Amino acid sequence: MKAGIIGATGYAGAELIRLLASHPHIDGMALSSVSFEGERIENVYPHFLGKVSAPLEKPEAVISGADVVFSALPHGVGEPFAKECVEKKIPFIDFSADFRFDDDEETFQAWYGKPYVHPELRRFSVYGLPELNREKIRALAASHQVIIGNPGCYPTGASLGVFPALAAPGLAGLAASEGTIIVDAASGVTGGGREPQKSFHYPECADAMAPYKVGAHRHTPEISRNFKAMSAAAPALIFTPHLAPMNRGILSTIYIPLKPEWQVTGGGSKGDKPLRPPSKEVEKKAAEIRQLYADFYKNEPFVRVLPEGIAGTNRVRQSNFCDISIHLEAGGGTLIVVSAIDNMVKGAAGQAVQNMNIIFGFKEQAGLEAVPSVF
Amino acid sequence: MKAGIIGATGYAGAELIRLLASHPHIDGMALSSVSFEGERIENVYPHFLGKVSAPLEKPEAVISGADVVFSALPHGVGEPFAKECVEKKIPFIDFSADFRFDDDEETFQAWYGKPYVHPELRRFSVYGLPELNREKIRALAASHQVIIGNPGCYPTGASLGVFPALAAPGLAGLAASEGTIIVDAASGVTGGGREPQKSFHYPECADAMAPYKVGAHRHTPEISRNFKAMSAAAPALIFTPHLAPMNRGILSTIYIPLKPEWQVTGGGSKGDKPLRPPSKEVEKKAAEIRQLYADFYKNEPFVRVLPEGIAGTNRVRQSNFCDISIHLEAGGGTLIVVSAIDNMVKGAAGQAVQNMNIIFGFKEQAGLEAVPSVF
Amino acid sequence: MKAGIIGATGYAGAELIRLLASHPHIDGMALSSVSFEGERIENVYPHFLGKVSAPLEKPEAVISGADVVFSALPHGVGEPFAKECVEKKIPFIDFSADFRFDDDEETFQAWYGKPYVHPELRRFSVYGLPELNREKIRALAASHQVIIGNPGCYPTGASLGVFPALAAPGLAGLAASEGTIIVDAASGVTGGGREPQKSFHYPECADAMAPYKVGAHRHTPEISRNFKAMSAAAPALIFTPHLAPMNRGILSTIYIPLKPEWQVTGGGSKGDKPLRPPSKEVEKKAAEIRQLYADFYKNEPFVRVLPEGIAGTNRVRQSNFCDISIHLEAGGGTLIVVSAIDNMVKGAAGQAVQNMNIIFGFKEQAGLEAVPSVF
Amino acid sequence: MKAGIIGATGYAGAELIRLLASHPHIDGMALSSVSFEGERIENVYPHFLGKVSAPLEKPEAVISGADVVFSALPHGVGEPFAKECVEKKIPFIDFSADFRFDDDEETFQAWYGKPYVHPELRRFSVYGLPELNREKIRALAASHQVIIGNPGCYPTGASLGVFPALAAPGLAGLAASEGTIIVDAASGVTGGGREPQKSFHYPECADAMAPYKVGAHRHTPEISRNFKAMSAAAPALIFTPHLAPMNRGILSTIYIPLKPEWQVTGGGSKGDKPLRPPSKEVEKKAAEIRQLYADFYKNEPFVRVLPEGIAGTNRVRQSNFCDISIHLEAGGGTLIVVSAIDNMVKGAAGQAVQNMNIIFGFKEQAGLEAVPSVF
Repeated sequence: MKAGIIGATGYAGAELIRLLASHPHIDGMALSSVSFEGERIENVYPHFLGKVSAPLEKPEAVISGADVVFSALPHGVGEPFAKECVEKKIPFIDFSADFRFDDDEETFQAWYGKPYVHPELRRFSVYGLPELNREKIRALAASHQVIIGNPGCYPTGASLGVFPALAAPGLAGLAASEGTIIVDAASGVTGGGREPQKSFHYPECADAMAPYKVGAHRHTPEISRNFKAMSAAAPALIFTPHLAPMNRGILSTIYIPLKPEWQVTGGGSKGDKPLRPPSKEVEKKAAEIRQLYADFYKNEPFVRVLPEGIAGTNRVRQSNFCDISIHLEAGGGTLIVVSAIDNMVKGAAGQAVQNMNIIFGFKEQAGLEAVPSVF
Repeated sequence: MKAGIIGATGYAGAELIRLLASHPHIDGMALSSVSFEGERIENVYPHFLGKVSAPLEKPEAVISGADVVFSALPHGVGEPFAKECVEKKIPFIDFSADFRFDDDEETFQAWYGKPYVHPELRRFSVYGLPELNREKIRALAASHQVIIGNPGCYPTGASLGVFPALAAPGLAGLAASEGTIIVDAASGVTGGGREPQKSFHYPECADAMAPYKVGAHRHTPEISRNFKAMSAAAPALIFTPHLAPMNRGILSTIYIPLKPEWQVTGGGSKGDKPLRPPSKEVEKKAAEIRQLYADFYKNEPFVRVLPEGIAGTNRVRQSNFCDISIHLEAGGGTLIVVSAIDNMVKGAAGQAVQNMNIIFGFKEQAGLEAVPSVF
Repeated sequence: MKAGIIGATGYAGAELIRLLASHPHIDGMALSSVSFEGERIENVYPHFLGKVSAPLEKPEAVISGADVVFSALPHGVGEPFAKECVEKKIPFIDFSADFRFDDDEETFQAWYGKPYVHPELRRFSVYGLPELNREKIRALAASHQVIIGNPGCYPTGASLGVFPALAAPGLAGLAASEGTIIVDAASGVTGGGREPQKSFHYPECADAMAPYKVGAHRHTPEISRNFKAMSAAAPALIFTPHLAPMNRGILSTIYIPLKPEWQVTGGGSKGDKPLRPPSKEVEKKAAEIRQLYADFYKNEPFVRVLPEGIAGTNRVRQSNFCDISIHLEAGGGTLIVVSAIDNMVKGAAGQAVQNMNIIFGFKEQAGLEAVPSVF
Repeated sequence: MKAGIIGATGYAGAELIRLLASHPHIDGMALSSVSFEGERIENVYPHFLGKVSAPLEKPEAVISGADVVFSALPHGVGEPFAKECVEKKIPFIDFSADFRFDDDEETFQAWYGKPYVHPELRRFSVYGLPELNREKIRALAASHQVIIGNPGCYPTGASLGVFPALAAPGLAGLAASEGTIIVDAASGVTGGGREPQKSFHYPECADAMAPYKVGAHRHTPEISRNFKAMSAAAPALIFTPHLAPMNRGILSTIYIPLKPEWQVTGGGSKGDKPLRPPSKEVEKKAAEIRQLYADFYKNEPFVRVLPEGIAGTNRVRQSNFCDISIHLEAGGGTLIVVSAIDNMVKGAAGQAVQNMNIIFGFKEQAGLEAVPSVF
């Protein structure tokens, strides 16, 4: 099978090439790039020398011979290619936000500042978070007229960390609807893309930490929508992204307010009492919730609910895993979920491959079997 | 004036030496170390070669000739030295938690697992956060029988970020007492000390991010107590520390729930409405709160409320500043405060020097004038 | 086929597990560890959770069911296991230096301070640098009584960078025998192993660079021996290792003095003339040598002589490649070779897998096909 | 005294501001910037908020009120300002290469591709390496018509490491004139300046190491010229710069071939003998040379010849020190000198301040007394 990648020379494109080069069902890649048209990918990324040497062509050439097309173009420019692929019955997997909001064009426009180019394409599109929409993806894929809105990196880690709290059997009603879920997340610098700019200039971000776009990041409505998609009673959302001095990874520390009946009686840091370390009841309740989380994801190939310890980005490095650890704050009133993904794999290229596998009926782990790299 | 440092060879001790070496009122240092007794500090830290070459002696020798004594010993072992200093009327500035909880021995014991050694010393001790207790420090210092419980690194950044929301004129009643303040913080690795251990082994923490001691970190009761000290109506607290791959710095992202009257009417992410970017009202309200924060700290030499932009650890690098930036989440219901300090300066050695300056009536900035280092 | 790993919980062991987990001919692993006996590998490295969960047993148990045994033990303790494997006709691949010096026990003892335990085993052993000894490995493997002395990390990068200068057709006599080859190399911190110690404590090595064991590193005689093995007329050697603030990778910058007939006439920085930028003749001569290097390695699956640009550790990240770039200094009198490997792959675990593939007649790239990871 | 800085918003300018802000004889700064004219420096570098808030003016305005002018402009554009300063008798300290080659315009043009703008200015200029030219600087400064060609970062570390081998009493004739000195150096990323570009984009250089401009870096003729200035019999030079994943620092590992009479008899790795670890004679000879190095620099305030251990960039962090350690390779035929500086201090802004101090007759350490920062 031959894969086409439009916009192949960005970081997400490069990571996709790396994954597809080892995919058991892919035996060829066609690539396009506006910036490097006419060159070979192994000259743009000498890392690939002798392994992947495809020329960088025009998008049209890429589409013509492909069985599946991935688009790693910026927001707002890929729709014509999506249209062409739908017409040719070539599955189209889009890394941009263009197809993440289904027919809610208003929200897309409010945050991305552009209207849809071909609104009618949304009847072929689906938000490609397999843990949420696997069956919808399969249904649409039957005709091969399918567009995947591949999820954003932050929304992937945040949503997987919260879903069980909203919908797991046994956890219904855990989250206090009238409260607010806070997602405090940190990303590696590859998340900022390949274009040099001051924020990502080495001496500006090395050995330093800061949030950005506080209260105003575009992934906020995507996360919020995912929560609502999982449960109409989902709490409100606050999302704060940070830039951390590392190449890969997204760590999300998520605070979910508990309904009174889930709170541990007798605990709590409120009122006049000074704080005390977590009680045995707190630990016990956390273990109970952890087990229900684990049950919820027991058939998911890429979600690991940790039986002990704390999720960290180094444990999922270079893999398609989302690790989740479950904690209760000392006061017992708030569930703290930590989720970790590799932003370039489960947060981008790996998830795209996972979607491709679902569309074509491959084993979902095909090409994504790599064990996380310890360092 | 001569300064003595007990436990001088840890990282906080080394940073203190660096600061005191340039202090205009200090002309000599005496140092002690259990691990390196008999050696010279410039052999333990070759960085100091030719600049600071004091021998490492016994604590008793250090105390005997000192006008002020700093103790960078671990929790629970320094009280006898504090006692000796009180008796000799030598101000004692302690980096451990021993004197941070005043006469609330119960809380200390609950979190640190030890009783006070000399409980009666607490009538000479004061929690050394100048922005909270400057007058108390001065009052105690008059007799030179004074013990400073130098604040923890996380509590410093968290407290300074929250104080105005609890007590600034014009902001009274901003924070919803029945809500919970969440402090999500990340620290550089020097915070873990100089003793090699797996968590801080380079390949284990480089290029990676994870929280630790979720819901159970010892700085939690210290932060909470500070909030209560500033306002009896302070909300409850959740605190989550993270380890970030950097040497210095603590970034705290703080979520403070607003009382209904402070929320921006018409905003909010709750209910069925999809999220929208922050409105002009949100920006305007944030500017108003920012100004009240700035007013609150207008006489503080080391707190900078940023007129624009976002606080980051690189902006306070190697300085005693605490930078604070003020934001409102898109929905307008929660105040987001970002505070940044250098964990080794304002979070440890610099604050200790600031306390010394207050005790002796020096200019509070003496020895702490350094401009933050850009890189 | 089942692989056994003795000493599986060090970094080289962990990397080997990662590689073998994706190897097409390996369907099971047995592991041993002195430090973690009785636990499961996925508890020691939670990265492996759900992927590799083998228990950590005694070495004897590991050997009993294995078709091949890898030993990642320290120098001087693995010989008894090697002996047992030879007797049982199980190929034994040793990461330590024990079998790298063949029957030159004197050199081993001079640098490692220990005698051989079973000197007679050397008739079954071979130094496992495939580019040097592939045929010897095959010959010994025929009986399955074979011990591989898997090369050191520095010697791998240094030797591959120098071999063509010593022995490539067309390059004979390039290197001035009476001169000295200087190998100036920098390694990532994983090279120091998993045991926490001050040198590798994050704040001690982050954001810093220094050499270590100048003029006295144990890999020096191994590199020198390899040069002599390739050509009796090899020049003398100076080797200086550095620690660089990165996880993976070894970069070697190698200076090879040229015989007069290879020097570019009219060039040279000697005498009274001030230096000038490289002339066209210098570039031309470099291109000529580059081509001869490329010819020398044209059948080697893991050596890439770069047609342009400069080798760097990021281009071989997570792969078994050794990249080599060829340069001539402005004066035209010295060849500068830059070689880059991933110290944990071609410098350790990957090379071990390559040796296993040769022994068993698998395709040499089996399990080592991964494209270098861009970040 | 008032200092003017032309081109103040680059990294060297920012570091100079940081140093001058604490200088005991400087009480005001005037700044210019083409890119940010009209803004304030504290907006370009929020690090300086409340500490240095000078407006960014035109160069002419900066010169008009200044007692000393620093120029951090790129090569080839600052000469008109130098001319104006000479005419006005304002000392001019230039960070560019324009005045580093005295009247050897030919070499400057060969490497920088431009002619001198005002060649006649060279009778007022001097290469500002105090350890080489202190007296010349003083002589020129008498008239206040003086231009300092502030040295390049690499040349500073390399030259200081080599000078004693060329000219120290007792070491005359140590270096083999007919040999080649190799300077293999690694720099932190601030050396590349503030302008974002691919080479210094975080994900491109983090966790990675590579040389650049092999055999062709512009600092090569400056280093070579310095060697010749110290001794007409200086050997030839090869210089290779590397980029290391750190913010600050330059480490130079320098190989100096010894004349036969300095080589340790009986040692040597040449011929058929396998290498052995360094002998006692090697250590003894190294100690002898170390002492002669120390004697040579005994009156230099910023050069530290280490009595033991190995120089590293972290030991001189944020200071104006150049640390030097002395080693002999196991074979005894080559001296290995390791030198470490902070590229932004002794390699740029600190050295400029040192030159200013010399010109004005201040204590040479004024404003440069800071103890190196351990982390």
